Amino acid sequence: MKVLIAGIDGYLGWPLAQYLAMRGHAVAGIDMFLRRQWVEEIGSQSALPISSFEDRQNAFYQRFGQNLIFQQGNLQDYKFLKSFLADFQPNAVVHLAEMPSAPFSMMDQAHAVYTQQNNVVGSLNLLWAIKETCATTHLVKLGTMGEYGTPNTDIPEGFFEIEYRGRKDWLPFPRQANSFYHLSKVHDSNNTMFACRAWGLSATDIMQGVVFGTQIDETGDDQRFGTRLDFDQCFGTVINRFCCQAVIGHPLTIFGEGAQTRGFLPLRDSIQCITLSVENPARVGEYRVFNQFEDIHNLKSLATTVQEVAEKIGLSVDIQYYDNPRKEMDRHYYNPDRRHLIELGYKPSGNLRHELELMLTDLIQNRTRILEKRRFLIPDIRWDGSHRPSNIIQ
Amino acid sequence: MKVLIAGIDGYLGWPLAQYLAMRGHAVAGIDMFLRRQWVEEIGSQSALPISSFEDRQNAFYQRFGQNLIFQQGNLQDYKFLKSFLADFQPNAVVHLAEMPSAPFSMMDQAHAVYTQQNNVVGSLNLLWAIKETCATTHLVKLGTMGEYGTPNTDIPEGFFEIEYRGRKDWLPFPRQANSFYHLSKVHDSNNTMFACRAWGLSATDIMQGVVFGTQIDETGDDQRFGTRLDFDQCFGTVINRFCCQAVIGHPLTIFGEGAQTRGFLPLRDSIQCITLSVENPARVGEYRVFNQFEDIHNLKSLATTVQEVAEKIGLSVDIQYYDNPRKEMDRHYYNPDRRHLIELGYKPSGNLRHELELMLTDLIQNRTRILEKRRFLIPDIRWDGSHRPSNIIQ
Repeated sequence: MKVLIAGIDGYLGWPLAQYLAMRGHAVAGIDMFLRRQWVEEIGSQSALPISSFEDRQNAFYQRFGQNLIFQQGNLQDYKFLKSFLADFQPNAVVHLAEMPSAPFSMMDQAHAVYTQQNNVVGSLNLLWAIKETCATTHLVKLGTMGEYGTPNTDIPEGFFEIEYRGRKDWLPFPRQANSFYHLSKVHDSNNTMFACRAWGLSATDIMQGVVFGTQIDETGDDQRFGTRLDFDQCFGTVINRFCCQAVIGHPLTIFGEGAQTRGFLPLRDSIQCITLSVENPARVGEYRVFNQFEDIHNLKSLATTVQEVAEKIGLSVDIQYYDNPRKEMDRHYYNPDRRHLIELGYKPSGNLRHELELMLTDLIQNRTRILEKRRFLIPDIRWDGSHRPSNIIQ
Repeated sequence: MKVLIAGIDGYLGWPLAQYLAMRGHAVAGIDMFLRRQWVEEIGSQSALPISSFEDRQNAFYQRFGQNLIFQQGNLQDYKFLKSFLADFQPNAVVHLAEMPSAPFSMMDQAHAVYTQQNNVVGSLNLLWAIKETCATTHLVKLGTMGEYGTPNTDIPEGFFEIEYRGRKDWLPFPRQANSFYHLSKVHDSNNTMFACRAWGLSATDIMQGVVFGTQIDETGDDQRFGTRLDFDQCFGTVINRFCCQAVIGHPLTIFGEGAQTRGFLPLRDSIQCITLSVENPARVGEYRVFNQFEDIHNLKSLATTVQEVAEKIGLSVDIQYYDNPRKEMDRHYYNPDRRHLIELGYKPSGNLRHELELMLTDLIQNRTRILEKRRFLIPDIRWDGSHRPSNIIQ
């Protein structure tokens, strides 16, 4: 298949390109290198060193024998996007080109507006460009489990049958997102659902859990194939941050009581699942939603597991509790479905401790890079709009 | 109370300013005159002649003895907005400053993006500006009944108790909007709901039915107090369009079978309801949703009623069916609640035929203005992205 990855230079995009090429797909990519800019803007850096995109392209050609078609460009630029799609005529577009950070979007008015404009307009342009140039192309769009929030009921995959005052319908499950970033993803989901209904586009909307991990098997030892790994308050997701803290002897930082429960999956599983979505496209006019995660954990038990694995390989690690800069429920029910991807053949890699050991080993070699930016390990972007570093509460 | 009307120059904004002033409130307004521009851009004009905003301001001072504080400006301009709010310190902001047309938003990629950017960013800026300068100000925001779509169940006012697999929660009712415009309103609702939860803002989100009417009692005979009335395919809502068609002897245009059912309310009721919302503010941190309409009608019965009233005053009127340029359900269940405003004291004016007679009388005097732009009475913006005039089907 011909697959276009929008956001090919990112944490998921770059390993996905390798995995798809390894499976024989023709890969093209666009990227504006904004993730590199955003992380630089807030003053941090990736814990894992990453190559220039040019070096990545060369490595790609050497290993897979295919020329990675690439153009630097932004989904905001409709002319560029439309002409790229018209030329490449992909079977699938994987849309990873969004600003992915909740704290970044809550920093101030400018960052909130930037986030929603970047994500909503970029995704809307993509829907129009597909409609106008390659209407049968399957859109695989990355949403987030955070779109649902934490309702006091099970969470189905996108839709559910409601019975209300004696009448029934099959409706989108209510969304209750908790940041302007998460809301931008809800907006995208709603726009995409409509485009499928009105225009007959095909889309898979992936509600993804929190991803962690430093590598997939295809990465190998060549650094040019390695992906980034952020640990700062904006772009560092929780397990990645815990592992970075563990290797520099910084206490693992839990915000609140640590009872917050989420779905998680290793990078390798995310890549596996996105590939399954690409290789098993939605039908014409179908808008389908996949909840994509391996397992459910609360933050406290995750921190304990990271602590245990770290100690096993000789690291000594504390856990410390900070007041939560976010507005989110601490104790809550959480039971989302994840049947659809399993039915398509998703095999969860299933060994959290092994994955953590791999991560810690990879990160130990980059201690200096984390130490240089250790000041970004304590958050100071607060959901109430103020800016002050979180305090230790236990 | 001090009330800021964003979009004070519009169809609702201008009569609302008069009604609020008449009730002793201090009124301020901002507007960018975009509605005048959009209607000009598509080549049409208001059926009722409207004065310049300067003339409106003078008339306002003469009648109400209060200086209408006004600044020309756009909600996109955050600096302007923030400083206006910081100076005026309103008790309530009524947000009517959005692009309100579904067909306009479906015209092409540029208009879809323009609509969502204008509406979502403008409303997001307003949330931030209130938070940063006057956090206890009550936001009265205009949404649309179109946010819900036409589910096969009753439609509650914003929220409902779901029971799902044996567990219960109180959640936002699912939205299924049918144009990029309606979706922009859903996005706004979601952003506003979050701002109330995260920041403790107070908001009333009005899901308004389709408004019709040429005047409220306060309009009087002074043309400077008159509001606009559009009849083109973009900005002309259905009853207003029927009445304009009736006075020039053009057949009433029904799209599809005419079984589409919606909530409707006369302009005077809309102004009454918005005022009730302003005068009975939401509590601190409360996000409340009002379904705002007087009665439910289907298009066919509305056309027949317009026809009957028109004939009574000596006009001869046909009804003609056209293929529907929109993607919407023709036959469907429709039973939305509207208890909240009634509980606050809303008294539906309740006489559709009398209102239609008033409208036809007002419009007869402006036949020439409608005749000049009669070519805009048949739609050619189609939901499938093509552009061709609708055909007669019956």
